[in-house]
Amino acid sequence: MNKIKIGLFGFGVIGQGIFQVLEKSRNAHAEIVKICVRSASKPRSIDRAYFTTDPEEILSSPSIDLIVEVIDDAAASYRIVKSALQRGIPVVSGNKAMLARHLPELIDLQRKHNVALLYDASSCGSIPVIRNLEEYYDNDLLLEVKGILNGSSNYILSRVFDHNENYDAALAQAQALGFAESDPSFDIEGYDSLFKLVIITVHALGVYVHPDRIFTYGISTIHDSDIQYARDKRYKIKLVAQVVKVSDRKFTMFVMPEFVTKSKYIYSVDDEYNGVVIRGECYDRQFMFGKGAGSLPTASSILSDIMARQHDYRYEYKKQHYLDKPEYTTDVELKVYVRYAETDVLRILHFERITEQYRSEECNYVIGNIKLSELIAKRQALRNKDLFLANFQSFFNDLDR
Amino acid sequence: MNKIKIGLFGFGVIGQGIFQVLEKSRNAHAEIVKICVRSASKPRSIDRAYFTTDPEEILSSPSIDLIVEVIDDAAASYRIVKSALQRGIPVVSGNKAMLARHLPELIDLQRKHNVALLYDASSCGSIPVIRNLEEYYDNDLLLEVKGILNGSSNYILSRVFDHNENYDAALAQAQALGFAESDPSFDIEGYDSLFKLVIITVHALGVYVHPDRIFTYGISTIHDSDIQYARDKRYKIKLVAQVVKVSDRKFTMFVMPEFVTKSKYIYSVDDEYNGVVIRGECYDRQFMFGKGAGSLPTASSILSDIMARQHDYRYEYKKQHYLDKPEYTTDVELKVYVRYAETDVLRILHFERITEQYRSEECNYVIGNIKLSELIAKRQALRNKDLFLANFQSFFNDLDR
Repeated sequence: MNKIKIGLFGFGVIGQGIFQVLEKSRNAHAEIVKICVRSASKPRSIDRAYFTTDPEEILSSPSIDLIVEVIDDAAASYRIVKSALQRGIPVVSGNKAMLARHLPELIDLQRKHNVALLYDASSCGSIPVIRNLEEYYDNDLLLEVKGILNGSSNYILSRVFDHNENYDAALAQAQALGFAESDPSFDIEGYDSLFKLVIITVHALGVYVHPDRIFTYGISTIHDSDIQYARDKRYKIKLVAQVVKVSDRKFTMFVMPEFVTKSKYIYSVDDEYNGVVIRGECYDRQFMFGKGAGSLPTASSILSDIMARQHDYRYEYKKQHYLDKPEYTTDVELKVYVRYAETDVLRILHFERITEQYRSEECNYVIGNIKLSELIAKRQALRNKDLFLANFQSFFNDLDR
Repeated sequence: MNKIKIGLFGFGVIGQGIFQVLEKSRNAHAEIVKICVRSASKPRSIDRAYFTTDPEEILSSPSIDLIVEVIDDAAASYRIVKSALQRGIPVVSGNKAMLARHLPELIDLQRKHNVALLYDASSCGSIPVIRNLEEYYDNDLLLEVKGILNGSSNYILSRVFDHNENYDAALAQAQALGFAESDPSFDIEGYDSLFKLVIITVHALGVYVHPDRIFTYGISTIHDSDIQYARDKRYKIKLVAQVVKVSDRKFTMFVMPEFVTKSKYIYSVDDEYNGVVIRGECYDRQFMFGKGAGSLPTASSILSDIMARQHDYRYEYKKQHYLDKPEYTTDVELKVYVRYAETDVLRILHFERITEQYRSEECNYVIGNIKLSELIAKRQALRNKDLFLANFQSFFNDLDR
């Protein structure tokens, strides 16, 4: 068998991980032949001859069979992937921000140029979510995908709820360990989870929803009183992404903190781990759990995509062609908890029904049913307020685990 | 797209489940056209015209594209599957006992007649273990697959350890609920787990080991004193199947009760659920969890195999062709607990090292290191004795979860 010759874009932690994993896997039949990086002068751990700063050296090389792209600049990633696909070169990518914004065009390009783009590593690192949604749950029985898709925010919440630390100390520790970026907003405001959810939904239900249309709320405004409220009730707060069918013809999706009870699978997804629950009409719930990020776990997921190319594997996007694809709706009610300071939240948010209200010198909160469309309409008004919002309970079925 | 025409063998709980699942899945493009059953006179829930008692009516029908075989008679299953493959008809099978005994021949037949045999439903029902080992973990980084593969025995142990019932009451309840057969030995003596482990190992490491060569010990001889011992130490006893690389060149495998500590993933696999931990060199541990048995979960797994056939999917058995496939060894030491009554266990079993010994009027036990080969050699001598044996701790790595 001929070795697959790989042109690699990016040699950060993930890129170096791929190099290591390919060396470890003696039966891989794949080798990196060229690596495109931004900086020519940076010291490198491997032979300088591998490196170039000119993308064309890879993109127009006739000897390269596959491009693996793991740079963290979404705009540059888009240009490289598009250009490769247009030239008929298959690509493995890990860039969720880029994929979430450009998937429809990239799917068209795959069809038009009869070429594959694989990206299992983009969602939940070493957990094979995309591949299983595409190949194993490749039918219309799927009802819901819900999970903890971001390791950094989960690490922070886990320090708070499993190790009784305060939020600021936990965030600082996550940064010290390299789990959270020095600008942690991507992880902590929920955007990383959002991008993964957009990609997952394409393979779960065959429908693409642009990230801007999806309600996303993070954990950066959490206060001690929110944490105390959760602890008193024996909940953990988790940052949860979910896509769920609310009827035969409709589904909804959002990213939001959630009060999670002990009976649920994701309750025990601690530290930097990811966990995904896949629920379907006949198989009930499947739970997949593993390391969602990090150099080697992500690299091993990329290895699976590289190996899949040896057998000419590509995503078929079969569900996009189902006759009765469900439609995205935000016309659903959620039960949410909103803790607020000075702002009177009831003047901003219209609740369908309020079930609890609490005021004190320390904090105020309200719990009630609210339309998801109302939350989306008031996104701007909620921003930069001393306010924390969390999904109070899973609303869509009683037996939810 | 033309509908796949299916000839079904067996119309028990699983067969009826497949019928239901295909009706529910509107995009399945597959239909059952003929069903072969043993009894012509039994009342049926669907139109009589579907049924035949003559296998040839399916096997020699030119209009049938795929055979789905879910009968519980392993000998008859073998004849049907072999005959279908020899005629070039692809097969989906759920019969683990048959597969575990005949896989090498059935793999040869697939190659010789260029035809597919899929059997994801045979191992862990709705959890996609085989497919992921074959496609996603299709490299040589895999170190271990370990799990709870049998729902009935796990249900019984879960009643004991999570609900404080006694063993006999739990067994009776499992039988009443239909989780355990009226002759429960297949589940409870570990053979069901063993057969699944044999199949899993073919796809995990590319090596077939005949079930007779593998140490298998069940839970039927468990006593109150064993349960009390575990409870005192805050362990649960679980029936665990595992295959694990013990060096670059060697692996071992066995099915045995194990004392499981709270820190391990499988500790929280309760009731009739299955859970599988996949450990690899770069991705660490993946945990997959779901319903391992039952009519609809198994049927939905069979549906995945049927759908896969629409894209001409077949197992490639790539790992069988690795140059450095590991070898099966029983020359490994385990740390086991052996509780015994009259029999002096030390006269039967040669321990390498004894670390604990306890004698009382109620019970006697010994804990120590023993060779797996010694356990295999003494299998007959251990049988029909008032004796219970359990893996005391995972021996192969300290950080085992």
